[in-house]
Amino acid sequence: MKKLIIASTSTVHGSTYLEYILNELSSFFSTADEIIFIPYARPGGITHDEYTDIAKKGFEKINKKIVGIHTQKDPDEALKAAKGIFVGGGNTFLLVHDLYKYNIMQTLRETVYKGTPYFGTSAGANITGVTMQTTNDMPIIYPAGFKTLGAVPFNINPHYQDPDPNSKHMGETRETRIKEFHKFNSIPVIGLREGSWIRVNDNNMVLKGKYSARVFEQNKEAYEIETGSLISF
Amino acid sequence: MKKLIIASTSTVHGSTYLEYILNELSSFFSTADEIIFIPYARPGGITHDEYTDIAKKGFEKINKKIVGIHTQKDPDEALKAAKGIFVGGGNTFLLVHDLYKYNIMQTLRETVYKGTPYFGTSAGANITGVTMQTTNDMPIIYPAGFKTLGAVPFNINPHYQDPDPNSKHMGETRETRIKEFHKFNSIPVIGLREGSWIRVNDNNMVLKGKYSARVFEQNKEAYEIETGSLISF
Repeated sequence: MKKLIIASTSTVHGSTYLEYILNELSSFFSTADEIIFIPYARPGGITHDEYTDIAKKGFEKINKKIVGIHTQKDPDEALKAAKGIFVGGGNTFLLVHDLYKYNIMQTLRETVYKGTPYFGTSAGANITGVTMQTTNDMPIIYPAGFKTLGAVPFNINPHYQDPDPNSKHMGETRETRIKEFHKFNSIPVIGLREGSWIRVNDNNMVLKGKYSARVFEQNKEAYEIETGSLISF
Repeated sequence: MKKLIIASTSTVHGSTYLEYILNELSSFFSTADEIIFIPYARPGGITHDEYTDIAKKGFEKINKKIVGIHTQKDPDEALKAAKGIFVGGGNTFLLVHDLYKYNIMQTLRETVYKGTPYFGTSAGANITGVTMQTTNDMPIIYPAGFKTLGAVPFNINPHYQDPDPNSKHMGETRETRIKEFHKFNSIPVIGLREGSWIRVNDNNMVLKGKYSARVFEQNKEAYEIETGSLISF
């Protein structure tokens, strides 16, 4: 019964917040007039209230009400009762740290598995995977573990970037980093380019949006899958 | 009595391994004919032996012998007896994981504090800081903690890159990531560009190499320090 939209980013270049994906969200959240927003990934600069306001304004355009989970007395109960869930981007270490700290990682997992529609962007997409280990974020805080929701049988690398053939930089490319991950882990990884997302309907998982995605499996050459493709391993 | 060279990278674009810094290394390691090499950061692709061979070939040019710590029966004793130490780059999570796993983080710290010359590149530079939390690496393995050597009173961001004003990518810039770090941590951070290094002689810390470095302090605007500058906080 799982229903997810796993999106590389909330915002694509030259467009407003969520604009590129609003049509999809409108049909996805058709049974939810109110959506619980989890702002924990945001490391500062703006408060959780301010971040929730941004989400509110985005979802106003499709007539959905947004409620910040940080305003709820019992976040666990709020998740269980939710009609829809949106987890925004920021820093994945912080998001995972806080989900463990508030002791709601397991409830969030159960809520997704029972079929509550879940939409995640960037860090919120990352945690739908088996682990958060293919995040691009800086480890600004030490989480209780790297294990995440496991709502899909792979990991996400959001904001995927192709190597720049003209680069003089000696740091690792994204592809090299994911290959390093596969020296120690067998979980497949999907590199999701900005503007692409995965729509999950239980075991039906489809790549959507503008771009192909890059798939990395252990001991295999990386390959592309076109938008519209079914995803299976 | 601390003596360190903290280098952004082992190799600069268009040059061979360590070439840009060999003169400095020759004087730095003047009292060491043999140097212990720690290859733990390398996540695979090549073995520890092969990685050590690369270091060997680099140091041959200045007539220094390299011995891989992984070939030593007692790595702890090998560190204590070392005349010089070189920690190579790779993945910082893996390096820190292994230093804790082999139970030599504390010995490495004591060895550096007693004055054994320490040279680190990339991940090996990262761990000279108070914590590894300003690494650029992917969390491919869960380390026992983020605390590192604290040989200097700041953190390192190796391979520092300036924001690209023409980028259409929505992922965080390096500067944004370091600012996120400062929402939770007060440790200053030095963004070291490839080709630059810090030479530490106890409390005398000097930026050397081709480029200025970018310094980040909590609740301050980031600023540049020129090569040749003394570093103090």
